[in-house]
Amino acid sequence: MNYILKDENSLYYECGYSCDNALFISLGSEKFFLTDSRYQQEATEIIKNATVIIEGDLYKKANEIIKKSKIKKLNYDPKEWSIFAFEQITNGLDIKLKAKPDFSHKKRIIKSYKEIELLRKAVKLGAKSFDEFAKMINSNGFGKDEYELTYMAKTALSKYGKRELSFDPIVAVNANASKPHALPTNKTLTKNDLLLVDAGLKYKRYCSDRTRTVSTINGFNFSTKQKFKSKKVQKAYDTVLKAHDNAISKARSGMKAKEVDALTRNVIEKAGFGEYYIHSTGHGVGLDIHEMPYISTKSDTIIEDRMVYTIEPGIYIPNEFGIRIEDMVVMIDGKIEVL
Amino acid sequence: MNYILKDENSLYYECGYSCDNALFISLGSEKFFLTDSRYQQEATEIIKNATVIIEGDLYKKANEIIKKSKIKKLNYDPKEWSIFAFEQITNGLDIKLKAKPDFSHKKRIIKSYKEIELLRKAVKLGAKSFDEFAKMINSNGFGKDEYELTYMAKTALSKYGKRELSFDPIVAVNANASKPHALPTNKTLTKNDLLLVDAGLKYKRYCSDRTRTVSTINGFNFSTKQKFKSKKVQKAYDTVLKAHDNAISKARSGMKAKEVDALTRNVIEKAGFGEYYIHSTGHGVGLDIHEMPYISTKSDTIIEDRMVYTIEPGIYIPNEFGIRIEDMVVMIDGKIEVL
Repeated sequence: MNYILKDENSLYYECGYSCDNALFISLGSEKFFLTDSRYQQEATEIIKNATVIIEGDLYKKANEIIKKSKIKKLNYDPKEWSIFAFEQITNGLDIKLKAKPDFSHKKRIIKSYKEIELLRKAVKLGAKSFDEFAKMINSNGFGKDEYELTYMAKTALSKYGKRELSFDPIVAVNANASKPHALPTNKTLTKNDLLLVDAGLKYKRYCSDRTRTVSTINGFNFSTKQKFKSKKVQKAYDTVLKAHDNAISKARSGMKAKEVDALTRNVIEKAGFGEYYIHSTGHGVGLDIHEMPYISTKSDTIIEDRMVYTIEPGIYIPNEFGIRIEDMVVMIDGKIEVL
Repeated sequence: MNYILKDENSLYYECGYSCDNALFISLGSEKFFLTDSRYQQEATEIIKNATVIIEGDLYKKANEIIKKSKIKKLNYDPKEWSIFAFEQITNGLDIKLKAKPDFSHKKRIIKSYKEIELLRKAVKLGAKSFDEFAKMINSNGFGKDEYELTYMAKTALSKYGKRELSFDPIVAVNANASKPHALPTNKTLTKNDLLLVDAGLKYKRYCSDRTRTVSTINGFNFSTKQKFKSKKVQKAYDTVLKAHDNAISKARSGMKAKEVDALTRNVIEKAGFGEYYIHSTGHGVGLDIHEMPYISTKSDTIIEDRMVYTIEPGIYIPNEFGIRIEDMVVMIDGKIEVL
């Protein structure tokens, strides 16, 4: 199949290397990696399955390569390309251009065993960073605001800049945690506050993703065993944890994604919190922090072995508090294994 | 004129607000800001010149609004839109779609006096952060590697996460500075090393951008007066500074951008370093870190009052060292004023 890719992670998946100015073209058995002179050394050292071409104008060169090849049909992902870039690539080509939304994501939905090991390692390092972050807060986080706490989370996860993050961490106190994508505020952390942390890091480009909601008593940690002073908060917390555990114990390969979603949603609905569970159960994770499969109420995707995704139910009471517990899982031998 | 915008900074320029899921549509005198319920409160509070519409599917809603309006022609920037998104917006529309590359950037090339004040403030805060970073290095930066130093720069510029950065800082030691877009390495900083720092922050969304190259003797600072041990480095440094100062004193409104570029390039070429000056003299700065005007050898853009851009000549000797000195400037009454 002939195709052309632009997204950095799509390129990395094809040939084990990518950078911020590159294209990948596959024409039958011939493959080309186009980049500029800044990346020549690394690209030629690492890429074994494609011809590395160094060029100033990548779009013009891609257009020439495709023209010369005399192919009749070319696949592309319309989500990867700006109208401007794609017009330059396809200028004057007399071939059929076939839009394939999520072309690379679809290839990547089932992970290899090697990818699973990289994701497992990312998750382990992510969990260690949560422990490190708890230590930092216990020693000097109280009295700091969400901006400073978010920066502290970045410091722990990135190990002072040595590692990339999967996304900007969410660190939210009490009522701010009621927004699933909370941005930091000037709200400071006091003992006994509810603290929600959603954060992840990258290990060899593979992402981790984890959420914990905790009660910040003295010497707290990010385990899932938490005691809150408020009965309402505790009831919501116990419900979210039960929903999380229910999906992990009962999800099976062969189910539809929406059936996995129901495993968390039914528990929360039965406890009377249904209207406060305002998002899907989870999403795939790999080179991208959000990829297939999407574990939502509408998804008919069949869950298969070696898919990796999150289980992250939540309850969000506006202006009061929010609870979310998230783990990354992999389907192995038909069942869920928590990474 | 009818137009539709998607880029966050394009939206902010139109109505003083934007977020990561929004569209702006201008149909004659009617203007619409489309976003989802997460941003309802802020959008309705801030936006005065457009009707705020809260929707789940922004593309579908935009399509409906355009259909109802019975306009005949719609302008868009093909660089702002993915093929996928634009197809959803324009699905079934019987109107002329007119591609206008850099539509918003062209509107933004001349800054208002208010914008100039915001940029001036960003530059001042950026310069203060450089001083703060110098203090940090002098007190405990020696022996740290480029990853840790980069993180230290982020800490100084962001004030522990309170401020956004214009881009990931470049902090490069000795030979690594010979790459204009150096990525951090394990190279540690030792006294008398050459240190290049290229960094900026945002003040009310407006970017600063600055580069200094220094010799890290005891108690060094980021001023442009620098003494290097190596004669070759000193000669290159003095040449870059002379090129920088030459452009700042001689650039005039009414010149072509390529004539401003020549004011740095001629100095460096005359000193015999021409082949090592491998990029343009500068770029516009505003809401985006790179915008118009581009100060390059090929640009016929006429420089006008109230344009804001960088002057950043450099000399890069592969595997040896790199020098760059960068300041942001504004054209006022026909001449350059350094911000």
